[in-house]
Amino acid sequence: MKAVVYGSGNLAWHLCPALYKAGVAFQAVYSRNPNTGKELADLLGTDYRQPNDPVHPSVDTLFLMLPDDVVRKISPSLSNVPQAVVHTSGSVPLDVLECRKRGVLYPLQTFSRELQPDMHNVPFFVETNDIGLRDSLKALASRISPLVYEANSLTRKLLHVSAVFSSNFVNHLYTLSAELLKDDNPGFNALRPLIIETAQKALMDSPKKVQTGPARRNDLSIISEHKLLLQERYPQLLPIYTLLTESIQTMYQNPDNNEL
Amino acid sequence: MKAVVYGSGNLAWHLCPALYKAGVAFQAVYSRNPNTGKELADLLGTDYRQPNDPVHPSVDTLFLMLPDDVVRKISPSLSNVPQAVVHTSGSVPLDVLECRKRGVLYPLQTFSRELQPDMHNVPFFVETNDIGLRDSLKALASRISPLVYEANSLTRKLLHVSAVFSSNFVNHLYTLSAELLKDDNPGFNALRPLIIETAQKALMDSPKKVQTGPARRNDLSIISEHKLLLQERYPQLLPIYTLLTESIQTMYQNPDNNEL
Repeated sequence: MKAVVYGSGNLAWHLCPALYKAGVAFQAVYSRNPNTGKELADLLGTDYRQPNDPVHPSVDTLFLMLPDDVVRKISPSLSNVPQAVVHTSGSVPLDVLECRKRGVLYPLQTFSRELQPDMHNVPFFVETNDIGLRDSLKALASRISPLVYEANSLTRKLLHVSAVFSSNFVNHLYTLSAELLKDDNPGFNALRPLIIETAQKALMDSPKKVQTGPARRNDLSIISEHKLLLQERYPQLLPIYTLLTESIQTMYQNPDNNEL
Repeated sequence: MKAVVYGSGNLAWHLCPALYKAGVAFQAVYSRNPNTGKELADLLGTDYRQPNDPVHPSVDTLFLMLPDDVVRKISPSLSNVPQAVVHTSGSVPLDVLECRKRGVLYPLQTFSRELQPDMHNVPFFVETNDIGLRDSLKALASRISPLVYEANSLTRKLLHVSAVFSSNFVNHLYTLSAELLKDDNPGFNALRPLIIETAQKALMDSPKKVQTGPARRNDLSIISEHKLLLQERYPQLLPIYTLLTESIQTMYQNPDNNEL
């Protein structure tokens, strides 16, 4: 596969080297940002180009590793390209791409520039309108990770929303915990073992089964004490505490486990 | 230390053996539940007793490993005991105990019966009204884990609320993610690498700095698509999605990072 990539953000920074090792020959990196664009081009041993520069005729695949709204915006301008166009977004439907051969290669992981993710452990979801492209994307992804699945646009969007809950929202709860403890020793550090244990426990069993805490036990006196403390010191956290507590209470409130 | 324990729940099940190995000689397990009570007594090589049975005069410490409301309820009945009384709760103030020598030994961890926690990695928080008791609880905890701190009742309550956010609420978000994916393949399994990566990343850096996702980028078109999907298929999750998204948007909305 002879390809170019549009974009040089966090996702491109980690996914392109993995694709390169899996056999993709990158001919150029196209980016509005010359700094990250050149850096990624150097990493891949290829050239940096401006977004509007022409694509060499030998290229067969354009990877769009761009924000979702940018994928939508530039798609019409790509409607007549002869190459396959492949985006990497969870929430953009395949058919937003208007070209003849279109595909999606969605890695379900959170990417930050500084931290090297374990690419061998990233699930990939493939969708295409073309059997040849499907097979080559699946083969490519399989050389990076054993976790390769086909998923249509709806499933992919559900996966993305789930990832928002399990990763983005979870990280925000960590952030709020750290804020709560910022004035005290040992602060957020004290929560580290608990955070790891909680993640590992949910993955060993079903998270629904291993739920613990005052809301799970419906311990109303603790819950009202916690609310009072938040009201006094961190009132902006009270709506989140209240809503998540109610959601847990509702989920486990049934005659069978009233005594838990 | 010659001790007895009141309670035979998840916490007692894991903490008593650790205390035993750290040198506590348990004289009996007192519990309303004869099944778990006898099981724990067997594990500790000691006897099971009914809650109202007398305590042997040689015992110097009573550990209360009981639900918070039970600690509150039985405390008056212990006001005249000669022994030190030590509870293990995050949210019950020290002075709820009415006896002469009182203490708290709070392990900040989530305990389930089936899963063996790594006790060497559990932070312990100690509070007492007695220097001798303080020193012996700290010495004891130090033989279990290097993470031993003193914390007053307010700090302990803040730690507990933080733990509710970082553990109980986080686990509930995992549960909601699993619900979202329950009809699709590969389901919740696909989120495993992401969940571990998210926890590890937050602990390597500050969670506030590593926040990603549509709310962090203020990607309004993705957010409204996600809301639409939830409204159609899982309307009960919409309020949580909306509130946590707004909380992230508010936290990162300032002129300095408008372009992110």
